[in-house]
Amino acid sequence: MKIAGRAYRTLWPEDRAVTVIDQTLLPHRFSTRRLETPEDAIVAIRTMVVRGAPLIGATAAYGLALALRRDPSDAGLESAYRSLLASRPTAVNLRFALDSSRAFVAPLAPGARAEAAWAHAGALSDEDVELNRRIGEAGFALIEAIHRRVGRPVNVLTHCNAGWLATVDIGTATAPIYLAHDRGVAVHVFVDETRPRNQGAALTAFELGEHGVPHTLIADNAGGHLMQHGRVDLCIVGADRITARGDAANKIGTYLKALAAKANGVPFYVAAPYTTIDWTIEDGLRDIEIEERDASEVTHVFGRLDSGELARVAIGPAGVKAANPAFDVTPAELIDGLLTDRGFCKADKGSLAALFGR
Amino acid sequence: MKIAGRAYRTLWPEDRAVTVIDQTLLPHRFSTRRLETPEDAIVAIRTMVVRGAPLIGATAAYGLALALRRDPSDAGLESAYRSLLASRPTAVNLRFALDSSRAFVAPLAPGARAEAAWAHAGALSDEDVELNRRIGEAGFALIEAIHRRVGRPVNVLTHCNAGWLATVDIGTATAPIYLAHDRGVAVHVFVDETRPRNQGAALTAFELGEHGVPHTLIADNAGGHLMQHGRVDLCIVGADRITARGDAANKIGTYLKALAAKANGVPFYVAAPYTTIDWTIEDGLRDIEIEERDASEVTHVFGRLDSGELARVAIGPAGVKAANPAFDVTPAELIDGLLTDRGFCKADKGSLAALFGR
Repeated sequence: MKIAGRAYRTLWPEDRAVTVIDQTLLPHRFSTRRLETPEDAIVAIRTMVVRGAPLIGATAAYGLALALRRDPSDAGLESAYRSLLASRPTAVNLRFALDSSRAFVAPLAPGARAEAAWAHAGALSDEDVELNRRIGEAGFALIEAIHRRVGRPVNVLTHCNAGWLATVDIGTATAPIYLAHDRGVAVHVFVDETRPRNQGAALTAFELGEHGVPHTLIADNAGGHLMQHGRVDLCIVGADRITARGDAANKIGTYLKALAAKANGVPFYVAAPYTTIDWTIEDGLRDIEIEERDASEVTHVFGRLDSGELARVAIGPAGVKAANPAFDVTPAELIDGLLTDRGFCKADKGSLAALFGR
Repeated sequence: MKIAGRAYRTLWPEDRAVTVIDQTLLPHRFSTRRLETPEDAIVAIRTMVVRGAPLIGATAAYGLALALRRDPSDAGLESAYRSLLASRPTAVNLRFALDSSRAFVAPLAPGARAEAAWAHAGALSDEDVELNRRIGEAGFALIEAIHRRVGRPVNVLTHCNAGWLATVDIGTATAPIYLAHDRGVAVHVFVDETRPRNQGAALTAFELGEHGVPHTLIADNAGGHLMQHGRVDLCIVGADRITARGDAANKIGTYLKALAAKANGVPFYVAAPYTTIDWTIEDGLRDIEIEERDASEVTHVFGRLDSGELARVAIGPAGVKAANPAFDVTPAELIDGLLTDRGFCKADKGSLAALFGR
C-alpha cells in the first residue's frame, strides 16, 4: 500500500539484501533498514523492527536464504533454522515459513540452496499478498452490501494492527477496507488505539492515513458507546490463532468489542489466512495459552514529545504492579463469520471443515 | 484515607483558607494548594486541580464562603454563585452545593453570611463523607459474603476513579473496598487504567497504594479476559448520573465491563449517593447527552519521563483525527445493583422509587 504517495511492501529484496520498514519508529519516523545477514534478520524480528505474523515469516525466510549464502551445508541449514526460529518463539508463521523454506532447499545440492531459498522467500511473500487479496474479496462483498443498504460511507471498527504493516502487503483485517477504498466504495474506520502497545494508534492510523482511507482514532473504551449509538456498521479484526470450531485468539480487548457488537447487532468478523487455523484444538478459552507480557508496557507509554524526540512516560505510581495479558479469546458464538483466503464462512466446526475440505 | 501513612481528606480548612491536594500532579508529585480567594477556587476547579463531582461541590461551597468575605451583599452572592457555577458547567454536584449554600446564607444578614457559608461548606463536606460511609456499608456486606464463600482475597475490578480523591473522603466505588480492607476482609483490586485520561492508573492506583490496599493495574482491554478466567469476583464502579430506572452514565468504557460481567456471571454494581440520581429521565441511552472532550486526550498521553520530568507524548501520527466521548451509558439490565447512601437496591424503577420513598 502507499506511504507518502508511493507504493510499498513491508519488505523487498534489493541486490543481495532485503530492506524492511523500521516499525518501532512508526508513526513518528519513516525509516528503512537493510538486512544483509541472518543476524540482521534475527535482530529485526526480536526487536520488533518487523512484527505481525506473516511479515515475521517472510523476514525469517529471507534470513534463512542469507544464512545459506554463508554456509549452505546441512549443518549450516539446521543451525540457521534454529537461530531464526528462536527469535520469536510464539510466532506460528515463523515456524511455518522456516519449515517451508527448509523443506524446499534441503533436497538440493548445497551450492544451489542459497539462490533457491532466496527465490522461495520471494514466493512466500507473494503468496502472503495473494492470500490477503482473497481475504479482502471475502470482506469486500460484505462492505459493499452494507454500502448499498445504507447509502453513506461504511463505518468499520478495527482493533490492533492486522494491517498491511503486519503482513507483506494489504493486511488481513484491513484487506476488505483497502479493496473497498480503492474501488470507490466509501469506508471510514474507527481505529482502537489498542493499549498497552498502541498498535492501532501507531500503525493502523498511520497506514490508513498514508493510503488515504478516512479514519478516526478512539480510546479502546469508546467502541461500545459508538456501537450503542449505531455509529459502527461492522467490526473486522485479525487473529493470532483460530480453533477448529472458530474461537479466535487476538489482541487483548478484542473480546470486549465482540460482546458489544453482539449486544448491539453489529456484525463481527475475524479475518485470517488458513495458516492461522489450529485444527488440533477446539475450545480456545481452555486450550489457548495467553502470553503474559512485561508489566512496563502497561505502566509506561511510548510516543513523541512536543520537541519531536521519542520517549516513554510512566502513567502510574512508581513501582505499581501491573498485569499484561497480551491476547484474549473471542468465543465462536460472538463471531458472525470468518474472512479467509478460501472465502467467507461461519465460525463453527462444520462450516470451517467444509470450507477447508477437512 | 492515608497518604504516606497520614490520614487526609481531599480538602481541609486552615485559618481563613482551604487547602486541597493538586490532583493534576498525581501520582507523580504530592503537592497541596492553598485556596484563599474565590478566584483560587474557580481556577482549581477549572484546571482540575480538584476533580470528581463531590469534591468539586465542596470546593465550590468553600469558594462561595471566600467570596462572601469580600462582598457579602446580595449582588456579591449572586455574582460569586454564577462565577463558581461556570467553572465546570456540566458538574451536577457543583450546582447542588452552590444552591445549598446560597439557600442557607441568603436569608441571613450580609454580615453573618461569610461565616455561615464557611460552616455550611464544612457541613457539606462532612455530609459527603457520611454518604460515602453508608455506600461503603452497602457494598461491604457484598464483599464480606463473597469472602466467606471463596475463602481468599476478594478480587474487585473498578474503572476510572470513583475513589476518595474524587470525593471529600472514602470515595463511592472505593468505599466498600476501604471498609473491607480496614476491617480485615482481604480485597485485591484490578484497576482499569481508564484511557484516555488514565484516572485509574494515576489516581485509583495511587490512592489504593497509599492506603495499603493490594491492587494490580491493567489496560482497559484486559478486564474481559480476566472475567472469562474467573479472576474477578465483582465489579464496582461509580456513576455521573443514574436515571429513574437505573441506567448509569459513567466514564467511557464502563459499559464494556458491564457486558463482560454479565457474560461471565460476575456481579456488577454501581455506587453513588442520592445526588447522582436524576429522577427526571428514564432512558439513559436516549436522554443522557454524552460530553465530547478534546481529541488531544486521545492522541497524547501525560506522564513522568525517566528523568522525573512530567511531559506528554503523542501516540499517533501527527494530525490524526480522534473522537473522545467522555462517558457511556450502562443499561440497567446489566447492573446487578446500586450501592447508595440508603443501602443496596436493584437497578430498576420500582426498587429505586421504593428505596428513596418516591
